[in-house]
Amino acid sequence: MTRPTIRDVAAAAGVSKGTVSFVLNGRPGVAEDTKRRILDAARELGWTPSHQARALSTSRAFAVGLVLAREPELLGADPFFPAFIAGVERTLSDRGQALVLQVVPEDEEEAGYRRLAGSKRVDGVFLLDLRVGDTRIALLEELGLPAVTIARPDVPSGFPAVLVDDRPGIVAAVRHLQELGHRRIAHVGGPAHFLHAAIRKKAWEETGEGPYVEADFSAAGGAQATRELLEGKEPPTAIVYANDLMAIAGMAVAQELGVPVSVTGFDNTELAAYVSPPLTTVRTDPYLWGRKAAEALLGLIEGEHKTDIPVPPAQLVVRGSTAPTGGTER
Amino acid sequence: MTRPTIRDVAAAAGVSKGTVSFVLNGRPGVAEDTKRRILDAARELGWTPSHQARALSTSRAFAVGLVLAREPELLGADPFFPAFIAGVERTLSDRGQALVLQVVPEDEEEAGYRRLAGSKRVDGVFLLDLRVGDTRIALLEELGLPAVTIARPDVPSGFPAVLVDDRPGIVAAVRHLQELGHRRIAHVGGPAHFLHAAIRKKAWEETGEGPYVEADFSAAGGAQATRELLEGKEPPTAIVYANDLMAIAGMAVAQELGVPVSVTGFDNTELAAYVSPPLTTVRTDPYLWGRKAAEALLGLIEGEHKTDIPVPPAQLVVRGSTAPTGGTER
Repeated sequence: MTRPTIRDVAAAAGVSKGTVSFVLNGRPGVAEDTKRRILDAARELGWTPSHQARALSTSRAFAVGLVLAREPELLGADPFFPAFIAGVERTLSDRGQALVLQVVPEDEEEAGYRRLAGSKRVDGVFLLDLRVGDTRIALLEELGLPAVTIARPDVPSGFPAVLVDDRPGIVAAVRHLQELGHRRIAHVGGPAHFLHAAIRKKAWEETGEGPYVEADFSAAGGAQATRELLEGKEPPTAIVYANDLMAIAGMAVAQELGVPVSVTGFDNTELAAYVSPPLTTVRTDPYLWGRKAAEALLGLIEGEHKTDIPVPPAQLVVRGSTAPTGGTER
Repeated sequence: MTRPTIRDVAAAAGVSKGTVSFVLNGRPGVAEDTKRRILDAARELGWTPSHQARALSTSRAFAVGLVLAREPELLGADPFFPAFIAGVERTLSDRGQALVLQVVPEDEEEAGYRRLAGSKRVDGVFLLDLRVGDTRIALLEELGLPAVTIARPDVPSGFPAVLVDDRPGIVAAVRHLQELGHRRIAHVGGPAHFLHAAIRKKAWEETGEGPYVEADFSAAGGAQATRELLEGKEPPTAIVYANDLMAIAGMAVAQELGVPVSVTGFDNTELAAYVSPPLTTVRTDPYLWGRKAAEALLGLIEGEHKTDIPVPPAQLVVRGSTAPTGGTER
């Protein structure tokens, strides 16, 4: 096995071994372009820290963990995770760190974290899909496992959070529909025990609109909720969905029923721009969140910083699926 | 830190410590329901092997790796990976093994495998998205890293393969369209350097149909290819797409152009049944492939078996997006 050494990286980058060692150990104080050159050289050569040797000398795993508690089908339909993971990896690969992934049924999530902590495979974890009153915060504190949460929990938490806020996106969607003349704007939300679903619902509620149907983020759930709303006594003229998948499925139901209704999604998936009509939706940036979360987690593991991480707010992308009342294009 | 022991698992499952040890080490010879009970108890308690202790005594990592070389956006739109990973995890979690994931740009894929091998983080890897004349087979043999491939490569390979075959699904789609009276059936394929895209294309070619446009599996690519076909001199009356995402985007283009065209997808994503009209597509089973691939890889690492793994062929699911020529519902 020919494994590139720090010496090889130094030769390729045209710097000293000491500088390479400094950069690869994540120490500050090296000029940004030198650092970049070294990291590029290390990546191209396939340089990697001797994981077992490092782990032995420091009892660190040099890896971080992610536990995903969703049904495979829903996971497959959700563009969030791959983009988030790609962002995480962008940060990790520069630092010789690995990502250990667990996909578990929702009722085995706690056991998943216990396994990760118990096996000493990871030095810290990401906490996604926060619940209302999330018990995993206390669990991770009990396990002594450093963590970074995506969004700020609604329970006390000593962990840094990537300050994702879905509120402005939902408010912008409702305002946009109101400006188009809509006066009866429904919301099809995700499962209310998810904090992000609850926050999207609350943002919509504060605009004083109604009615509301809870669904499960799946296309099937979005279709059923839409049918319920449109076949009800006072059908809405517009529907704000908590994700693109439900919105696209809802749009198809409206088309089949021949009911003109404006719809908005959430995520700005690639497909959103390519359905007919193209979907008005809220653009988020999970790739950036992944990068920022990984930086924060590695910093936390090294005892560096503990502050929350601000990120740009979600933004409304207006396309053809929203139109003035009475004149919805179809 | 309270970590459950083999004794705890034995107590919970009502069997001896020896039986638990036997099962958790993956040895054969224990009755299936006893084995199931022990694995369930281990999972519920969050039992985990002491990874560092085991790794030290055997120089094994007790983990397997997956390198994904795709752009984050494409990864997010592809339901294959999460389903495959969920299947892999189902097998791994029963055996106290972890999955180490790397997402890399396509030109850093080889470095990704070198890193995984060099860091001794994994005992073996899965090889997905095989290329035509895939050079990674030789690389992994050189690195001495056991692997299982998804589909059989078109180059010599000593690794077991999960015998995924996309051919029957494409042939069934074309036959179905021919039976509906279509005589000009186009194909929008994936990048031809992917073996699965090449195989889908070849299966379609063997039916004697035309024309063909190569796209990139994205919604944008599917939309553009469709526009090219439908605005061409002799537009097809039906289009067979290499995935659902391109098919759904293509359907929207046809609707906007007002051209009636029958379309078929590939994957049977959840959304396929919930667009308008619902998408005729080919159902595959990446969750099962993930389970089987993980079983084969762990077996290979333990020196057990090396044979290819048969899986059921892909099947056509007929829905509203295909109709007789001249009468395509829209």
